Amino acid sequence: MIRISLDLMGGDFGPQVVIPGAAKALDRHPDISFVFYGLKEQCDPFLAKFPKLKEKSVFHDCELAVSMEEKPSQALRRGRYVSTMWRSIEAVKTGDADVAVSAGNTGALMAMAKFCLRTMANIERPAIAAIWPTLKGESIVLDVGATIGADAQQLMDFALMGGAMARALFEIERPTIGLLNVGVEEVKGQEEVKEAGRLLREANIDSLEYSGFVEGNDLGKGTVDVVVTEGFSGNIALKTAEGTAKQIAEYLRAAMSRTLLARIGYLFAKSAFDMLREKLDPSKVNGGVFLGLNGIVIKSHGGANAEGIAAAIEVGYDMAKNGLNQKIENDLKKYHAKRLPPIGPEAA
Amino acid sequence: MIRISLDLMGGDFGPQVVIPGAAKALDRHPDISFVFYGLKEQCDPFLAKFPKLKEKSVFHDCELAVSMEEKPSQALRRGRYVSTMWRSIEAVKTGDADVAVSAGNTGALMAMAKFCLRTMANIERPAIAAIWPTLKGESIVLDVGATIGADAQQLMDFALMGGAMARALFEIERPTIGLLNVGVEEVKGQEEVKEAGRLLREANIDSLEYSGFVEGNDLGKGTVDVVVTEGFSGNIALKTAEGTAKQIAEYLRAAMSRTLLARIGYLFAKSAFDMLREKLDPSKVNGGVFLGLNGIVIKSHGGANAEGIAAAIEVGYDMAKNGLNQKIENDLKKYHAKRLPPIGPEAA
Repeated sequence: MIRISLDLMGGDFGPQVVIPGAAKALDRHPDISFVFYGLKEQCDPFLAKFPKLKEKSVFHDCELAVSMEEKPSQALRRGRYVSTMWRSIEAVKTGDADVAVSAGNTGALMAMAKFCLRTMANIERPAIAAIWPTLKGESIVLDVGATIGADAQQLMDFALMGGAMARALFEIERPTIGLLNVGVEEVKGQEEVKEAGRLLREANIDSLEYSGFVEGNDLGKGTVDVVVTEGFSGNIALKTAEGTAKQIAEYLRAAMSRTLLARIGYLFAKSAFDMLREKLDPSKVNGGVFLGLNGIVIKSHGGANAEGIAAAIEVGYDMAKNGLNQKIENDLKKYHAKRLPPIGPEAA
Repeated sequence: MIRISLDLMGGDFGPQVVIPGAAKALDRHPDISFVFYGLKEQCDPFLAKFPKLKEKSVFHDCELAVSMEEKPSQALRRGRYVSTMWRSIEAVKTGDADVAVSAGNTGALMAMAKFCLRTMANIERPAIAAIWPTLKGESIVLDVGATIGADAQQLMDFALMGGAMARALFEIERPTIGLLNVGVEEVKGQEEVKEAGRLLREANIDSLEYSGFVEGNDLGKGTVDVVVTEGFSGNIALKTAEGTAKQIAEYLRAAMSRTLLARIGYLFAKSAFDMLREKLDPSKVNGGVFLGLNGIVIKSHGGANAEGIAAAIEVGYDMAKNGLNQKIENDLKKYHAKRLPPIGPEAA
């Protein structure tokens, strides 16, 4: 049984979408049990529609919900201990849940997760990892917005954590890792990226294979299993890709409705278009994973529909089932044991 | 007459593609005259095919061509004064051409352009501006790779230069400017971006309208006319968008060829698909503009076909015709005059 704590009030639509999303995930994975955190009055009407879900869940009525607009510091001040967001995270800390999922505001969720769960030993700053659809399947890209301006050692930590996540998610033994960089040779700056490359080469880690630098266009190609970058450029890459996909979908829609022949063609090719739409549907790949904390927290897109919420829950399910945090801890321990000489009488 | 100096040896295909590209541009703009720099033996067979082009151009035989793989420092050492790339830039300096165009390697072209033309007064570092196709038309995005890690004042300079380019290219009086940032509030780091925002608000510049921060997904929407960022994230955004467009084109191709019905649909909708392909064709929007130098240099994609080369030439044509560098100089002068109190007896 995988126990998932779910913030029912998160996202642009709250329980109206989060509850049907949970029902979808449960349909596909009957070994999920839920711990719900919500505002009772608002949730009850939707829960009533899913009796099977209601049976497989425990509901906790909370004092308040964090809004999508609140600043992290404000959310933390107002919502600590009492909000649906905080309490869903806390359930992971107390051991009442294996993973927490929320579609609430990213900054607040990260602030609360850091405050409540704290970072793992040897990890200075957490990262948000995104699952990126590629021509070869999927890659992991981190950090997409938790830390701005990581140094070489932090990029190294991201590589270790991303590698562990790839092993948990894709079931490959030695995922390939690339550092996101610009193609122009001999450019000034971004010394941290070059230095991280040196660290990765020299560390020669069993659990991952360092493939060198990759560029923005390698993301969609799926050149490597894990792409490592600091949060500013990672966030910009993620949102640029989402924006470009929407833009092209819009061009396509316009092209297909412009002439009668095109509309007829659309009807003939409808199943192909449905397949394409599925590929382009961001809700099919949803769920940013917070890495580096003492507990797994999944962030769903705020604008996700029920299918998107289900996808985020399923990412959490996979991560918990495959022992993501145990894998990360082991990898970090191995790396740091190699790196630091033993301290104490034996070392003398 | 707009005089364009063209490096015939640049790009993955050299004269075989650059010369037909020049012919296309000339067809569409009979008021172009060309100054060509190439290796005679390699260029003659292709030039012979375009008698009208040959008539409207002067050919200079050069000693050598810079390769696509050469490091900037190496290219500069070997190719200064004598290469086709250097000499096409130098023609702008000497006044023999209004603008230089090359599809050669970006790092080498930037290094030579900086060395030969030098930066404008008040500009510390040049930028590369890309023309970005959007749902509303086109935007300008800079810097896409010349400077890594710009400070607030450099971002301010980019805004002024991008604004001048928007006025030259789109013929709007007061283009809107956004600073590329991540959406999460209260994030640490990227103080330069916040500081640049403050500078832009306070400067209250006549020639541009500051619209605040934009995110990666605003690029494709066309939220503002000019998006300003430093070169690392700009380069990653550009290549991520290109990669995503290719990825979706590949999905589309696969979806349309999968079933017989889809293939029939494709035939019916072919003209719509052609329109879509046109929208997605990177060669239709080609030509990175080097800004901040005492002369205009246009960088074409190395992999551009003849249509792409023509597009880059036409960007140069537009920039020269609309007096881009004059506009930039005027805007910089106005800004710095407001900014610095007069020095001398009057100020006392």
